[in-house]
Amino acid sequence: MDEKETGRLEAFSDGVFAVAITLLVLNIKVPEPDKLLSDANLWKALFTQWPTLAAFVTSFFTIGIMWLNHHRVFTLIKRTDTSLIMINLVLLLIIVFIPVPTELLAEYLLRFDLHTAAIIYAGTFLLMASAFNILWRYASYQGRLLGKHVNMHLVRSINRQFAFGPLLYLICFGLAWFNTPVSLFFGLALALFFAVPGSS
Amino acid sequence: MDEKETGRLEAFSDGVFAVAITLLVLNIKVPEPDKLLSDANLWKALFTQWPTLAAFVTSFFTIGIMWLNHHRVFTLIKRTDTSLIMINLVLLLIIVFIPVPTELLAEYLLRFDLHTAAIIYAGTFLLMASAFNILWRYASYQGRLLGKHVNMHLVRSINRQFAFGPLLYLICFGLAWFNTPVSLFFGLALALFFAVPGSS
Amino acid sequence: MDEKETGRLEAFSDGVFAVAITLLVLNIKVPEPDKLLSDANLWKALFTQWPTLAAFVTSFFTIGIMWLNHHRVFTLIKRTDTSLIMINLVLLLIIVFIPVPTELLAEYLLRFDLHTAAIIYAGTFLLMASAFNILWRYASYQGRLLGKHVNMHLVRSINRQFAFGPLLYLICFGLAWFNTPVSLFFGLALALFFAVPGSS
Amino acid sequence: MDEKETGRLEAFSDGVFAVAITLLVLNIKVPEPDKLLSDANLWKALFTQWPTLAAFVTSFFTIGIMWLNHHRVFTLIKRTDTSLIMINLVLLLIIVFIPVPTELLAEYLLRFDLHTAAIIYAGTFLLMASAFNILWRYASYQGRLLGKHVNMHLVRSINRQFAFGPLLYLICFGLAWFNTPVSLFFGLALALFFAVPGSS
Repeated sequence: MDEKETGRLEAFSDGVFAVAITLLVLNIKVPEPDKLLSDANLWKALFTQWPTLAAFVTSFFTIGIMWLNHHRVFTLIKRTDTSLIMINLVLLLIIVFIPVPTELLAEYLLRFDLHTAAIIYAGTFLLMASAFNILWRYASYQGRLLGKHVNMHLVRSINRQFAFGPLLYLICFGLAWFNTPVSLFFGLALALFFAVPGSS
Repeated sequence: MDEKETGRLEAFSDGVFAVAITLLVLNIKVPEPDKLLSDANLWKALFTQWPTLAAFVTSFFTIGIMWLNHHRVFTLIKRTDTSLIMINLVLLLIIVFIPVPTELLAEYLLRFDLHTAAIIYAGTFLLMASAFNILWRYASYQGRLLGKHVNMHLVRSINRQFAFGPLLYLICFGLAWFNTPVSLFFGLALALFFAVPGSS
Repeated sequence: MDEKETGRLEAFSDGVFAVAITLLVLNIKVPEPDKLLSDANLWKALFTQWPTLAAFVTSFFTIGIMWLNHHRVFTLIKRTDTSLIMINLVLLLIIVFIPVPTELLAEYLLRFDLHTAAIIYAGTFLLMASAFNILWRYASYQGRLLGKHVNMHLVRSINRQFAFGPLLYLICFGLAWFNTPVSLFFGLALALFFAVPGSS
Repeated sequence: MDEKETGRLEAFSDGVFAVAITLLVLNIKVPEPDKLLSDANLWKALFTQWPTLAAFVTSFFTIGIMWLNHHRVFTLIKRTDTSLIMINLVLLLIIVFIPVPTELLAEYLLRFDLHTAAIIYAGTFLLMASAFNILWRYASYQGRLLGKHVNMHLVRSINRQFAFGPLLYLICFGLAWFNTPVSLFFGLALALFFAVPGSS
């Protein structure tokens, strides 16, 4: 029955992750045909959309790899309680919100003198990493919600890797105040870094 | 086979809950870059969106915790019939509709002299709580659709907590006629209240 | 392994049904606040949206009950082949398309002299009922894809009820050429009629 | 536990496929009623939308049959690793992106002198077929992630059919530089061709 409880939580979370990651595409707008009368003009119009694509790809991998790590920790978490469900809802709230800063960043990526959009974008990732860290700390503290025969070696390895999560996203957030493209690139690199499981 | 029947109903309901909760984000509009030439202007434009965020967060937790309670009662409900399926469809219809009053409320939250948006918002929650109550009453009446060896203590504990659902949302609805922000805040508090399982 | 094959088909179909039924809400537009300065004006603006709501509710129950019957027949269908998968994809294509005629109908419901929108709306339902009928006929013909120990009594009962599906939707389609609201009301009645399982 | 790992990957992928295939419908715009005062005008306005419908149907079957083949190979793939998850995320990124070139193609389908939209559309399908091929090659190379008792006859049959995937989509891509409608029609034919399982 405990197993089944996290099963439900995981299924609902999977659904939210899948919808949120797909809604990102709604940010990409197609140029109107009336204004673009030649192939050359259309290519040019599409190439000017690269900030939208860069933001789309970064957010896609960030959500996708957050889903991956969500599942990694839920292979260890076997029980749920009200606090875990609420922390998970807060994490999903942040995930669902990601398309908004993504669109904002895409619109302001080329305005090098403005940093508000990048700060909000990196700030959302920082909140996401923090919520995920709290979820794992809460569930794993003294093995609270883990299985009885959990691999403590694996738990410590996850602890080690995730300890750096909020810290690394804090650096990403700090970069956003100075240089928007560098912060975006660093965010993409972080997503890929967290795709690799910690050495166990 | 009975088990499998509610399994299908739950999977479809989970999908609808997950999509509806994620579509809420489409209400949040990003300011157009053309009109906002400085960081200061952008921050200001974003801060004026707080009613949208407040409505978004309240609706997110209301749907999220309605999902949670939907699953709580379906750990006890083991069989389905046509009436249960129809009541559940009506409940899902109301859930799917929630983004509309959410957007309406966000647009009118700061017009303190107008209460129509808040009345429709709180009224939708009242309908949702009533439909959920009817679903549970129908399924649990004389143990109609519950498992054979159901914990009657737990059933009574749920009965006790859910008895207040429509009543509390009626108060929320009443508040909406007089003060929009208080009604919204009360709605958020109700969502969090129903996250805590009844004392069993 | 056969069981697992329809399991995959059902899970994907469930996802498509859940997303399509939820996207219907995107058709409902909220009146812009700038133009509506009083509560009385807002109520009036909302009441003029009743055709959108009527179309939304009818499409919601039509998709919801098509999902229900999709699952009813898949409790009997145990195996899949390429033809079944293709017929099912065509059925899903029609389901995914439903928000378009729904929006069209909502916009033209009050133009009593115009019937194009109602014809397309009822025609889409007719195609849906036909595709579903073909799916069931194909799977059940000589027990092709049914389980070995299938209840033939139940199969015949489904055959009897579904035989009327395309016929009844043909009547709905015919009505659309003369009277839009009557056709819409008949469509809603049909959805509810198919919610009740055939007498077995 | 290995089985469960691909189960999670499949469930998330199914969700993304289901949402992406349904979001295609958002490209279909309903004509505004104000401008179309007679039934004849409405029919005419709808008939001019056939490029949108043709692009919608082609993309629908392409995604639907990509889902089908995704599941076919995952009946053989039993284990996952980080590389497989990343290749799968790249495949999902391309799937999620498909609504964008679909909308672009729909808008430019009748501009026979322009080929940019068709090139991007067919190019996206070429990338999709390549990513899927890499996924299968990676998983099946020396049976890396397949089950122990996998049917090698079936593996070779899949290898034979999928070998042509990128090549056939390369032809589709080549056609796009010369004739947009022929390329679109060839793309639809390819989707249907890959629906039929390879002769095993």
